Amino acid sequence: MRTTLRIVALVVGLLFAFESQAQTASSGFPKGELSSAKNHTGNIWLSELSVGESTFDPGIAMATYDAGAKLDWHMHPGGQVLLITEGSGFYQERGKPVQVVHKGDVIKCAPGVEHWHGAAPDSGFTYIAVTPTQKGKTVWLEPVSEQVYKGLK
Amino acid sequence: MRTTLRIVALVVGLLFAFESQAQTASSGFPKGELSSAKNHTGNIWLSELSVGESTFDPGIAMATYDAGAKLDWHMHPGGQVLLITEGSGFYQERGKPVQVVHKGDVIKCAPGVEHWHGAAPDSGFTYIAVTPTQKGKTVWLEPVSEQVYKGLK
Repeated sequence: MRTTLRIVALVVGLLFAFESQAQTASSGFPKGELSSAKNHTGNIWLSELSVGESTFDPGIAMATYDAGAKLDWHMHPGGQVLLITEGSGFYQERGKPVQVVHKGDVIKCAPGVEHWHGAAPDSGFTYIAVTPTQKGKTVWLEPVSEQVYKGLK
Repeated sequence: MRTTLRIVALVVGLLFAFESQAQTASSGFPKGELSSAKNHTGNIWLSELSVGESTFDPGIAMATYDAGAKLDWHMHPGGQVLLITEGSGFYQERGKPVQVVHKGDVIKCAPGVEHWHGAAPDSGFTYIAVTPTQKGKTVWLEPVSEQVYKGLK
């Protein structure tokens, strides 16, 4: 019986180790720094993978959201593509319904379109963002209404 | 003793299940189509994630290499960034030493620089490539020497 208990403890330990490895290794890129910007609510980590500049335009960055974290409304003059690599979240363009998005989805946001994105209330959310930089910087707008966010499913 | 054996079998089964889940779930994007192009040796799958066009320049695609698969030498007029998401491989620019590259590495290849990349002989290799398209298409050159490839470690 004591042996059985020891083995059960080993199983549980190994499973935790594997799960932790799967989470860490899922992208392989560093999680980056916790954002101190005022354009979001909740914790968002930013990891710059390639800086946009004139010879190679698009900036490439990974963003990792805690469950419930969300960006304010904003707009990219050069557009943006989001490659969702972990979790589930929301994406909404101004005047359109909210889309529920998941790991493996690709979102193409056209230049000049006002939108927001964020994690679901019960799930982390990670994406790689590809953002052309030569047409201008992101324009930040108002926060997403807490009342609207709480009503999302 | 019989209980112990059953538990050991359960552990092994669970560990395999976890490992398999980690491999499948690592990117979440479709593996795409097996390439029939003549610009590589070995099996390479291509998954187009976002098509490059004039309003949103960079093309974004995922490439998955079998162990030992490699592209010919080539050049991108607009440059390319590779985000390595799985495995290990090689990257070499003309006249420079071969670099061994791994999951989590980011490679920035400047416009006009001749280079090649491929999987290691004993490892699969997957990356997401971000390629500006408005400055011209990829220029394909000669195959990588098998003799040189076989000598790489």
